[in-house]
Amino acid sequence: MKTPVHIAVSGAAGQIGYSLLFRLIGGGLLGDQPITLSLLEVPQSIGVLDGVAMELHDCASPLLSGVTCHSDPEAAFADADLVFLVGARPRGPGMERRDLLEMNADIFSVQGKALNRSAKRSVKVLAVGNPVNTNALIARCNAPDIPPENFAAMTRLDHNRVVGLVAARCGCNPGDVKHAIVWGNHSTTQYPDLQHATVDGIPVLDGVGRDWYEQEFITAVQQRGAEVIRTMGRSSAGSAANAALGHMRDWVLGTPEGEWTSMAVCSDGSYGIEPGLMFSYPVQVRDGAWRIVQNLELDAFSREHLKATEAELLIERDMVRHLIP
Amino acid sequence: MKTPVHIAVSGAAGQIGYSLLFRLIGGGLLGDQPITLSLLEVPQSIGVLDGVAMELHDCASPLLSGVTCHSDPEAAFADADLVFLVGARPRGPGMERRDLLEMNADIFSVQGKALNRSAKRSVKVLAVGNPVNTNALIARCNAPDIPPENFAAMTRLDHNRVVGLVAARCGCNPGDVKHAIVWGNHSTTQYPDLQHATVDGIPVLDGVGRDWYEQEFITAVQQRGAEVIRTMGRSSAGSAANAALGHMRDWVLGTPEGEWTSMAVCSDGSYGIEPGLMFSYPVQVRDGAWRIVQNLELDAFSREHLKATEAELLIERDMVRHLIP
Repeated sequence: MKTPVHIAVSGAAGQIGYSLLFRLIGGGLLGDQPITLSLLEVPQSIGVLDGVAMELHDCASPLLSGVTCHSDPEAAFADADLVFLVGARPRGPGMERRDLLEMNADIFSVQGKALNRSAKRSVKVLAVGNPVNTNALIARCNAPDIPPENFAAMTRLDHNRVVGLVAARCGCNPGDVKHAIVWGNHSTTQYPDLQHATVDGIPVLDGVGRDWYEQEFITAVQQRGAEVIRTMGRSSAGSAANAALGHMRDWVLGTPEGEWTSMAVCSDGSYGIEPGLMFSYPVQVRDGAWRIVQNLELDAFSREHLKATEAELLIERDMVRHLIP
Repeated sequence: MKTPVHIAVSGAAGQIGYSLLFRLIGGGLLGDQPITLSLLEVPQSIGVLDGVAMELHDCASPLLSGVTCHSDPEAAFADADLVFLVGARPRGPGMERRDLLEMNADIFSVQGKALNRSAKRSVKVLAVGNPVNTNALIARCNAPDIPPENFAAMTRLDHNRVVGLVAARCGCNPGDVKHAIVWGNHSTTQYPDLQHATVDGIPVLDGVGRDWYEQEFITAVQQRGAEVIRTMGRSSAGSAANAALGHMRDWVLGTPEGEWTSMAVCSDGSYGIEPGLMFSYPVQVRDGAWRIVQNLELDAFSREHLKATEAELLIERDMVRHLIP
């Protein structure tokens, strides 16, 4: 039997965590590969989490070699190969953005330190909980003994939304949409870029027109999460878990030949972005290592959008700088 | 490209439906096979359902060829290949079991008639919503032009719980537990039977002992759903969706060689059960057709338990007889 891959999930009793876990034990991440699950929740949700663990046992999955529940991050992350940091404080009534950032920065600095103490040095850590880029930055900076490239923040839901909206507009299968990009922050400043995207090898912009792209599409992607909440009455969960799965799968198994995806990773200065920020770039993955796609031509419109989302990330970083060692 | 398989799901905005849909579009049912989804909800949940459909688009799954939302069952079931009847009225405060049965009998008689008018004659209909055996009976009896063997009720969650509990007790992988059976009604009268079950070819009862089986295990399985609710504060959803997926997958693709599973299907009188009841039996599936495993030896203990769960199903049937044409 293969050695199980050890996967830790924070916020495991929340809606996104709950959606994710059943897909993990169904082989949705790594196929026919045994896994062990280590689930982390805040102390007041441990009861619910125990129920979730019962349900996981009730799936009788031959791929699930074990489940443990934790309220201590260090115990939860011990020897983890893959970590999904899903849990985060949502924005409450009367909370300023600064409050939200600081509250989550506290959570992610604790979790970064815990990862540093107990996870494998080769661990891959994907932050999913918002504000996700800055949460990932804090975790990474608090785990100095883990290589910075082992941290990422999820913009795959935005990327998938781009692909889905283009496919709907063009009347094609989502699988035929290639080379979409989401740049920057997972927020309303993100820049969903169709200037390199193709459908069946034909530039998307030739089909959908620059007006639709600039005046409707970009806002539609930026506002999509809010529109789902308005329509459904709650936040995206199933599609977020699906995106987390897709991000991690590509990170472990590689992006398809000739394709790329969007991941927020530690900037090396590519495309003029401040080094060290967790910035969403087009990336390709081989042998478990991502590299930022280089030498894409950016026009003035694109450069302006990259600068705007970078500016927001710089402000976020400044707000939590006291938690960055 | 392969022709999409058309799948209808009722109660698609509920917790079980929501868990099921994202696994369907991830290929969890039929693998690399395109599907179209037709989602049914009560009118007051259509807004939520529209949000769910947005989230499905946001997965950009190459397997999803289309999604439609409906409040009319006949439209929802049109040309369906596979149907999951997940939606059902839960038991409210002050409701008697008779009220619950009648209310759901109304829903499932309407849906049976709708299936009869618009679904493919080869449709496979799996009832998941409770009281599931009798709901399936009503749907089947109201769809006289669809072969009765095309209807089933889900006892797979009970079956999986049996396997999971045995695996935990024996310290083995759930995949090593074979030939478990759940007989009868998906209720507290169900009979989880380990008398034919093996682990690695060795009889389970040799390992766990008859006392544990009779005095702890049977009640634990019968009460497992209630225990999950007590622990988690809500009903099983992810594990129920997982079971629905497992049932339908085995029904379409066949049970593994030498194995069987538990499905509530139209009794032909096997094991002395009243013909026509939807009774959970051990079944094997080849080429999309189930057959009840025959000639299993039942001792007095087993026969008594089969009679008890049959008696409950007969009472349920009598309560809704006015809706059985």
